[in-house]
Amino acid sequence: MDEKEKYVEELVDLEDDYSKWYNQVVRKAELADYAPVRGCMIIRPYGYAIWENIQGLLDRRFKETGVVNAYFPLFIPRSFLEKEAEHVEGFAPEVAWVTRGGGEELEEPLAVRPTSETIIGHSYAKWVQSYRDLPLLINQWNNVVRWEKRTALFLRTSEFLWQEGHTAHRTLEEAEERTQMMLEVYRSFAEEDAAIPVIAGRKSENEKFAGALRTYSIEALMGDGKALQAGTSHNLAHNFAKGFDIQFLDSDGQRKYCATTSWGMSTRMIGALIMVHGDKSGLMLPPRIAPYQAVIVPIWRKDKDKEVVMGALERLEKILKGKVRFKTDVSENTPGWKFNEWEMRGVPVRIEIGPRDVQNNSVVLVRRDNRAKEIVSIDALETRLPELLEEVQQAMYQRAVEFREKNTYYTEDYEEFKQIIAEKRGFVRVKWAEDSEAEKAIKEETKATLRVIPFDQPEGGVKGKCIYTGKPATCEAVFARAY
Amino acid sequence: MDEKEKYVEELVDLEDDYSKWYNQVVRKAELADYAPVRGCMIIRPYGYAIWENIQGLLDRRFKETGVVNAYFPLFIPRSFLEKEAEHVEGFAPEVAWVTRGGGEELEEPLAVRPTSETIIGHSYAKWVQSYRDLPLLINQWNNVVRWEKRTALFLRTSEFLWQEGHTAHRTLEEAEERTQMMLEVYRSFAEEDAAIPVIAGRKSENEKFAGALRTYSIEALMGDGKALQAGTSHNLAHNFAKGFDIQFLDSDGQRKYCATTSWGMSTRMIGALIMVHGDKSGLMLPPRIAPYQAVIVPIWRKDKDKEVVMGALERLEKILKGKVRFKTDVSENTPGWKFNEWEMRGVPVRIEIGPRDVQNNSVVLVRRDNRAKEIVSIDALETRLPELLEEVQQAMYQRAVEFREKNTYYTEDYEEFKQIIAEKRGFVRVKWAEDSEAEKAIKEETKATLRVIPFDQPEGGVKGKCIYTGKPATCEAVFARAY
Ligand SMILES: [Zn+2]
Ligand SMILES: [Zn+2]
Repeated sequence: MDEKEKYVEELVDLEDDYSKWYNQVVRKAELADYAPVRGCMIIRPYGYAIWENIQGLLDRRFKETGVVNAYFPLFIPRSFLEKEAEHVEGFAPEVAWVTRGGGEELEEPLAVRPTSETIIGHSYAKWVQSYRDLPLLINQWNNVVRWEKRTALFLRTSEFLWQEGHTAHRTLEEAEERTQMMLEVYRSFAEEDAAIPVIAGRKSENEKFAGALRTYSIEALMGDGKALQAGTSHNLAHNFAKGFDIQFLDSDGQRKYCATTSWGMSTRMIGALIMVHGDKSGLMLPPRIAPYQAVIVPIWRKDKDKEVVMGALERLEKILKGKVRFKTDVSENTPGWKFNEWEMRGVPVRIEIGPRDVQNNSVVLVRRDNRAKEIVSIDALETRLPELLEEVQQAMYQRAVEFREKNTYYTEDYEEFKQIIAEKRGFVRVKWAEDSEAEKAIKEETKATLRVIPFDQPEGGVKGKCIYTGKPATCEAVFARAY
Repeated sequence: MDEKEKYVEELVDLEDDYSKWYNQVVRKAELADYAPVRGCMIIRPYGYAIWENIQGLLDRRFKETGVVNAYFPLFIPRSFLEKEAEHVEGFAPEVAWVTRGGGEELEEPLAVRPTSETIIGHSYAKWVQSYRDLPLLINQWNNVVRWEKRTALFLRTSEFLWQEGHTAHRTLEEAEERTQMMLEVYRSFAEEDAAIPVIAGRKSENEKFAGALRTYSIEALMGDGKALQAGTSHNLAHNFAKGFDIQFLDSDGQRKYCATTSWGMSTRMIGALIMVHGDKSGLMLPPRIAPYQAVIVPIWRKDKDKEVVMGALERLEKILKGKVRFKTDVSENTPGWKFNEWEMRGVPVRIEIGPRDVQNNSVVLVRRDNRAKEIVSIDALETRLPELLEEVQQAMYQRAVEFREKNTYYTEDYEEFKQIIAEKRGFVRVKWAEDSEAEKAIKEETKATLRVIPFDQPEGGVKGKCIYTGKPATCEAVFARAY
């Protein structure tokens, strides 16, 4: 058995045990570790570099819509959480409480923020006086804590990193427009940068954010047929404005409540990247998000070849510097080992260079997604490599779209619905008459939840009956088992 | 009284009440607000944009030395803090404790990190096996909590943002080299990017980090003659490695303890920027760190002029986009109001454009630092403005150096020392025989602390007697009242 096989053999087949495969990829690619604190994670440098790229790409998209960044405190007084009734009910069970500080018991316990609507609402009430102060468009990149019993790295941990945007508007219409605008930012980021196709739409009453009028989300399909909510955007209407007295003097001389929104995307997205793109060789990263878009692997057997190859490396690095993110692997491992390691870690393109390549003034490019090889002259590399990376980006997106299409089912029959959920998983699209009780019953019976009511509905409206209640359907809805 | 005077009048004279001036600048420039949680702050968008620029510039400098970013948990088990005796003694009084989570009392209280040596030490012990795994060079950008009784925005708050770097090395020498290397990164950032001259050197035993072998710092002089520690770098030797069992198998077959370092710079740096560069008109930001390097103020009286000027604005914006960070102020305020507002907010250069300027195809550039005006052709703007910004950057640094020189005293007489500290403040440089008791006595008698033992010492060693004990001096030391 050669070394290459051995390395791959260590990784469990994702068709045999998907969650074991997921955990092995996270650990072997050195993305994250469990912390010695229950339910918390350590994001290792390679995983964090992915997050830095996600941050950079998302942040730019936010700023293009006029959003600016700020920072609000980690601690939230208990009384703040209690000001919005649904909000406190939704979050209280998950809160971590600081009860001592500076050697004394605190008079009022402080929540470690599970989300910041309340503390930000308090500031907005001070900052907003007139309609001229609106809209307020603020985002923060931070850590939040939600005590979790069952945890999985990136997918569900007691502390995670995210961004939370919070806006305040003059009218409900404007808030609704912003809510959908930010969902569109998430959709375009997911599809264009993360190469993850998503269904965008509205959450049901059961699944919406605690305190929101309406929640929108983007839902992605993982490699095992389960859904993952990859980003949410909430129209909070006047709920938090009333709780925190965010009022403004309008141009008509009337004092009015603002309408507010909030929206977030988290380190969960890294879990989605792993599960949408990963394969039996490990991680596969889309070029726009990969910490290294290419890895250069020098190859030689004899010492005199080494000199020749190492000389060419310098030239290669000079050509690529500032144009693509790359790493040169000059470790003592064998080329076979390096191939497998960087495939495991999901680098989109491998650049092989041996003595014969140097002689021919060329390199070999190997794609991570389909292993296709091509020989490229070193002079053409600075043009060809970025082009190839874009081809890989598009191919990864297409492959994910095809997987999702293949695993999306349509049925009007509840028995068939149950069978699909039990045997095949995937997205199941059905006719639906919105009904919270029916939704709960389906969850009880199948463990599937209503993921989203897609924006994309049949033209001219939905005809026919709800798959569960038989009442006249009002929409199509997508169900799935979910992370 | 015209509007311009009125605006300036609202700001207290910094010579009358420096700390009131400081607080007014923070609030009027919309840098930060107190939070409704005792001792915590809200960093507002303009203040946070300064922090984003600091982060970008520092992060690039870190990465150039091989450092990568990661993320470690917010919570630290009590037992971890207790593993390094001096460390727990130093930090325990300032810790905020989480005692409840997920509806239950925790078995072991969790500290909200005051700093992360312990939790990172635990990971390093797992990650380091062999000398081949070394060095580990990791940084994190995060929030930390240290319960404070007396607080001041940016300077001392219970929660603040910072970066903390943590490295592990094969030898003590290598750790020492890294400790000094990172101090040099801080020094060059402070002087080149923040335009803040600093004294780099070693901290006394009394002032070093709890758990360190040696602490180095950079010290800056504020506008009121008090010192501010702007960055620290610690050689932790084997202290934390022993507490957390960070061992490696060396090439000689021996198991050895790592030597570790840590180093940090925080949002305090924003306080330093305010106090080093600010003047009676408010904030003054160095171009490399300013959120807006230039503000464009259109000027007109008649409606027909407005059209002409607004037309030219578009052209200006097109020329400057991507070359400098700028803002166009098209609000309804008068030009005089805008001039004062953007001076208050410290924008390095103002670009005035009125109908006559449009006619002449030129603009007026006004420097924030010395109010010098120059007329520049619009065609020359893309070359001249970046050049002018660099001139402002250098001039601000020179001005700060001159202020520091003027406020640095040298004395061999303790009575004079006391008089300087009481009447003039500033840095006082003295001959010193290291002695913790003498240092405490001086602090008691004058409130001045030993800021730093500068790297820059007299050639051939120090001759003469310690200013306090009269023992043979071993070095020169710098004392000051400090923030
Ligand atoms: Zn409101
Ligand atoms: Zn160690």
